[in-house]
Amino acid sequence: MPEKIKVAIVGSTGYTGVKLIELLLDHPLVEIVAVTSEQYSGQAFSEVYPAFLDIFDQKCIKLEELAAKSEAENIKLIFFATPNGIAMERAHAFITRGIDIIDLSADFRLKDLETHFKYYQLERNQDSVDLNNEAIYGLCEANASKIRAAKASIAEGVLIANPGCYPTASSLSILAFLDFNKRSKNNNLTELFNLQDIIIDAKSGASGAGRKSTTANLFCEVNESFKAYNLAHKHRHNPELEEFFSIYSETKINLTFSPHLLPMTSGILATSYFSLNKAALSEFDLDDKAEDINNKLREIVTEFYKDSHFVKVLKPGQYPNTASVKGTNNVHIQVEYDEYTNKIIVCTVIDNTVKGASGQAIQNMNLLYGFDENLGLNQKVRVI
Amino acid sequence: MPEKIKVAIVGSTGYTGVKLIELLLDHPLVEIVAVTSEQYSGQAFSEVYPAFLDIFDQKCIKLEELAAKSEAENIKLIFFATPNGIAMERAHAFITRGIDIIDLSADFRLKDLETHFKYYQLERNQDSVDLNNEAIYGLCEANASKIRAAKASIAEGVLIANPGCYPTASSLSILAFLDFNKRSKNNNLTELFNLQDIIIDAKSGASGAGRKSTTANLFCEVNESFKAYNLAHKHRHNPELEEFFSIYSETKINLTFSPHLLPMTSGILATSYFSLNKAALSEFDLDDKAEDINNKLREIVTEFYKDSHFVKVLKPGQYPNTASVKGTNNVHIQVEYDEYTNKIIVCTVIDNTVKGASGQAIQNMNLLYGFDENLGLNQKVRVI
Amino acid sequence: MPEKIKVAIVGSTGYTGVKLIELLLDHPLVEIVAVTSEQYSGQAFSEVYPAFLDIFDQKCIKLEELAAKSEAENIKLIFFATPNGIAMERAHAFITRGIDIIDLSADFRLKDLETHFKYYQLERNQDSVDLNNEAIYGLCEANASKIRAAKASIAEGVLIANPGCYPTASSLSILAFLDFNKRSKNNNLTELFNLQDIIIDAKSGASGAGRKSTTANLFCEVNESFKAYNLAHKHRHNPELEEFFSIYSETKINLTFSPHLLPMTSGILATSYFSLNKAALSEFDLDDKAEDINNKLREIVTEFYKDSHFVKVLKPGQYPNTASVKGTNNVHIQVEYDEYTNKIIVCTVIDNTVKGASGQAIQNMNLLYGFDENLGLNQKVRVI
Amino acid sequence: MPEKIKVAIVGSTGYTGVKLIELLLDHPLVEIVAVTSEQYSGQAFSEVYPAFLDIFDQKCIKLEELAAKSEAENIKLIFFATPNGIAMERAHAFITRGIDIIDLSADFRLKDLETHFKYYQLERNQDSVDLNNEAIYGLCEANASKIRAAKASIAEGVLIANPGCYPTASSLSILAFLDFNKRSKNNNLTELFNLQDIIIDAKSGASGAGRKSTTANLFCEVNESFKAYNLAHKHRHNPELEEFFSIYSETKINLTFSPHLLPMTSGILATSYFSLNKAALSEFDLDDKAEDINNKLREIVTEFYKDSHFVKVLKPGQYPNTASVKGTNNVHIQVEYDEYTNKIIVCTVIDNTVKGASGQAIQNMNLLYGFDENLGLNQKVRVI
Repeated sequence: MPEKIKVAIVGSTGYTGVKLIELLLDHPLVEIVAVTSEQYSGQAFSEVYPAFLDIFDQKCIKLEELAAKSEAENIKLIFFATPNGIAMERAHAFITRGIDIIDLSADFRLKDLETHFKYYQLERNQDSVDLNNEAIYGLCEANASKIRAAKASIAEGVLIANPGCYPTASSLSILAFLDFNKRSKNNNLTELFNLQDIIIDAKSGASGAGRKSTTANLFCEVNESFKAYNLAHKHRHNPELEEFFSIYSETKINLTFSPHLLPMTSGILATSYFSLNKAALSEFDLDDKAEDINNKLREIVTEFYKDSHFVKVLKPGQYPNTASVKGTNNVHIQVEYDEYTNKIIVCTVIDNTVKGASGQAIQNMNLLYGFDENLGLNQKVRVI
Repeated sequence: MPEKIKVAIVGSTGYTGVKLIELLLDHPLVEIVAVTSEQYSGQAFSEVYPAFLDIFDQKCIKLEELAAKSEAENIKLIFFATPNGIAMERAHAFITRGIDIIDLSADFRLKDLETHFKYYQLERNQDSVDLNNEAIYGLCEANASKIRAAKASIAEGVLIANPGCYPTASSLSILAFLDFNKRSKNNNLTELFNLQDIIIDAKSGASGAGRKSTTANLFCEVNESFKAYNLAHKHRHNPELEEFFSIYSETKINLTFSPHLLPMTSGILATSYFSLNKAALSEFDLDDKAEDINNKLREIVTEFYKDSHFVKVLKPGQYPNTASVKGTNNVHIQVEYDEYTNKIIVCTVIDNTVKGASGQAIQNMNLLYGFDENLGLNQKVRVI
Repeated sequence: MPEKIKVAIVGSTGYTGVKLIELLLDHPLVEIVAVTSEQYSGQAFSEVYPAFLDIFDQKCIKLEELAAKSEAENIKLIFFATPNGIAMERAHAFITRGIDIIDLSADFRLKDLETHFKYYQLERNQDSVDLNNEAIYGLCEANASKIRAAKASIAEGVLIANPGCYPTASSLSILAFLDFNKRSKNNNLTELFNLQDIIIDAKSGASGAGRKSTTANLFCEVNESFKAYNLAHKHRHNPELEEFFSIYSETKINLTFSPHLLPMTSGILATSYFSLNKAALSEFDLDDKAEDINNKLREIVTEFYKDSHFVKVLKPGQYPNTASVKGTNNVHIQVEYDEYTNKIIVCTVIDNTVKGASGQAIQNMNLLYGFDENLGLNQKVRVI
Repeated sequence: MPEKIKVAIVGSTGYTGVKLIELLLDHPLVEIVAVTSEQYSGQAFSEVYPAFLDIFDQKCIKLEELAAKSEAENIKLIFFATPNGIAMERAHAFITRGIDIIDLSADFRLKDLETHFKYYQLERNQDSVDLNNEAIYGLCEANASKIRAAKASIAEGVLIANPGCYPTASSLSILAFLDFNKRSKNNNLTELFNLQDIIIDAKSGASGAGRKSTTANLFCEVNESFKAYNLAHKHRHNPELEEFFSIYSETKINLTFSPHLLPMTSGILATSYFSLNKAALSEFDLDDKAEDINNKLREIVTEFYKDSHFVKVLKPGQYPNTASVKGTNNVHIQVEYDEYTNKIIVCTVIDNTVKGASGQAIQNMNLLYGFDENLGLNQKVRVI
């Protein structure tokens, strides 16, 4: 068995931090040697989260202590599970010392820095700008080969920008179709799917808001309630999705993204809508029988994810349920064609703190170091 | 003060039945003289629901006892809060005796009986077919004047088909725009809204499934879970919406309707999408500035509902929350224009058991008998 | 109909404040003329709680503006729905001007000021000390006659200290037995119940913690969790219960009180335990047949509450459920005798924000002004 | 590594069945070779629970097919995760063939068959009576050595009766004190704790009721509600506790047990009360200073569980929270002394489907086969 790599978690007591620890404790090739928390520094992690009593009692340190610690301990990888703006300032110093970083915040997700500033209002220095150019967008199902190759091509530490939770669920709904259109185009075929007009209606559990003490996050405000928010391009994940789709498909894509807040802790469900280009059906040996189109849609998605450990296409008649992926890095997808309206509806669920954050971060780590992609991420099913 | 009317509730121990009782007990012009329950007949209502101890202790009777009871008590109105198929068989006998019926089931909601059979698989006899022709679709905000006039025009009892919960929330999102387009057309203007391509992504609390003992409705299955179901025209409320929109707009309309199940008891939120016909902007003295379009949208909705007791358009920046209408007959609406995608997004919330069922049934009763539309339905706010 | 009394609510945007408004809007003899909020002053109440849009749009003022306002508007009664320490400082000035006060905080609940200071660490000036002597403990079922007589006997404004939510539920479990013992003693009979050794195991919904933005109150911390806290005389309601029981029974009483936090918004259930003094059975014409003892227990409680509008004793075999009293001022009680252990178990439920706070405050107001005790508090059942 | 043992699960689609599968899939020395379900036989397990898609797709068989299967596959151990009454009829045939059984139902928990019949109304034949005599009560923390030795002493298959969920949480609260008293007595010391008068106020999540489709288990009935039930010796776990305590302490013990139903899926919290025998303090070198007594209590519990993998005593000031043990086989305990009432309060939490059922079943299996007690049961923490 290879030697364990030593990792640190910055911002360990937030929800993505604690989920990282929960998962990494079960990873055979990782040793957690430092966890930081500004609020709880000096306390044992298990004092903050008694669930970890006798399981993970490591003392939290401050971020400013991490440089020395990382040298002393020979830390290889740091997860930033921090509010936006921290990694932007601190990542560079570690990267230059050869430490890899997986950033779960939004600091390095957007290549377009103007858009980033518009949505996040955070200034960045030149180091951060340079680093942003190097950062790899860590949507594993799209960029696995790039991540696998990263250590070879980059002398310094590698920086992976872990995608947002909504963008993960949403992208995995559309990816197969973006890819299909791209390959069609490359083969001089007409695009079968109108992907210039995607609507993504997404719903997230409350852990997506993090462990922030605001009135809006209180139990009595979230419980037995459901609401939309930040409609019409006001949510930060809207431009993240558009940039990623545009890069991936090599076409400028705008889309309508509508987030909603669910009265439950974990899970995201994205319902996506786009239309079929009926004019192109014949090029793909299809007439417009709904059954055939449904089969084709299923085939496209199944084929695209055939080597994925985590993405599973449900059988006809089954619908994705957030409860079925809870605690896991799994993704359940269903696709259906509505013959009366010519709409294709894709429904995808993830656990927002796992595949939407910490699980995907570990998947990225596995890819980066050439581990099995699903190492430490298997068999976490939690039905009850 | 006018004399109280005497009413009966068939199927009183289901969730819409108990909500009817809860609301009618506070109605100054109604007296409940009979409640039926096949399962609990012979028991006091307050034995089934101890919340009503000393408040409503009336004994449940069987439906077969209601004919005699209605004669003896001179019952004027019967609410059917029953599973589908019951009113279809039983309503006619009451109607011919001059008793009015408000049916909360789906038996008389669709004029197109072929579609009804396709979605409900329930055979009906000739009486039921005839009755279906007479039935008024009780979406109050659309058909108030028809309902108000009904008693004058019909010698026998009046039959009101109370709309489904999803259709109520969904229709109230679109109604103002259907009306605007219709009036534009009548004025020889181009339609400003493309309403041939509506997508309605709707989410409902668990009480929408009724008080049926199935595995799918168990606490441990619904709690901490979220799923879509019956996508792509498989839900029965899809044709109900299409037929109503088609009749209302005098054009055939198909639409994409996607229901989802929320882990909470009460509330529906519908997020609706359609696009703006930019080519028509100039006819309405608009250029394509987002702010102006937003103002116009708000003006259209506000104007349409200006005399409504229940439908309230939220201020810019506020988003409808099911918790804000819980327990009330109120409807909160927000509309926004997404300038990047040219989509109009309308978000509407109701309490599915009140405005989506029993509250609207009482609103229909108020209209039918010339009471104030909001009698017994005011000031029910329940924030905590 | 008598003239409406004008009232103000200090601290209107907390959970007990909003519940007061919700209930008072339905009270035929009350007009709300001022609501204060330090955090939201200047905003319409309906901006803070959109549920009240078009229903209660009054603008929040600051507490410092209330003196002038109360003079201008001729305010008769002020509800303090504030954190502890505010009424202690501000009540006196209003009282001396003849304004009555119902204080929902803990400032005037304890006669023993040393104990108060030990548990609350709040200093008070001489005015507050004097006022504390005058304050009436507003547990209506115990002190109704005192409250009804208060206006006659006190020249200045009357101060009612509304009981805590846990003490309300807990006291109503034991009151009938305290009373029974007291009357037995007065008749030179042995005490039938050992009330020197009461254990109260109480469970409360999350709204009991108020609308405070702390990590502990976050949705993701409360949801799907259950815990005890402040065991072994560390909760502030423990001495409140002991003082009230001691005064009421004219004997010093200590008791074990254990609070727990439920993953739901509203409701308290108190399970109380004490033992039967078997030696006294014969004095009450009882042998030790369980059935007879059970009948006696039920008779004692039923008799004690026979004139109560709100306290209802459940039938044998039924158990109190918080959901059955949700939104109401009702109290459901069940009592059982365990013959194997000689324990009497009393189970009581209330809605903590209604009977445990704002509903009882209104009940106190009704008593104070000679209104029907249940005016504005009837028929609020909310099963679904 | 030793060879994997082959196991079957009878009643695999109930909540304890699915939890067994979830946990056993992660156990390095177990292979699941058969799962039965009367309702879903013929379907893949992952069709019933889509969470297991591509993870556990084994087809469910009927129980009547298991005899042949167990022979063909050389099954060593069968878990009965069935309703009461099934193992009673079916276990004997497997036991005689040398197959071990861990029964998660209540069929073999009580040695006193008269009491069993009184509470369960299930007749049993002579084989079942004989088997009941052999059955070992599988509360691991009490009977580990007996279970470890079982294979040596019994020629046929071993039968372990897995304890009820409430009795597990409750017993683990009291065990250390029962043991301390017993050892005191053996050393001719007075008993320090009055354990003849224990009150256990217990609260359970809804999964404790199993996956039964009854009105009482519906989401809308359980959500936002809290109630007591089966008070005063009417719950089946009351005699189970009494018998176990009596056997363990070698004294007849009665106790008061009060179950309550929590609006959440998983978790039990038991709050237990008994009093200190102050007269005995000096024999244990204690005076009645609360701090010293608290230290002594903590020392007793800590010492008793010092070798336990799963039972953890919380630090002073921390209170057990069901969320902290969710998904784990862990047990969190806190003990406090109330000096004002001389009561000792012990608070214990478990996950009812893990330590209260399937986790303890696996712990029993580990003990039975000489595996590490915590094999397959470690590091399952699930904070978010």
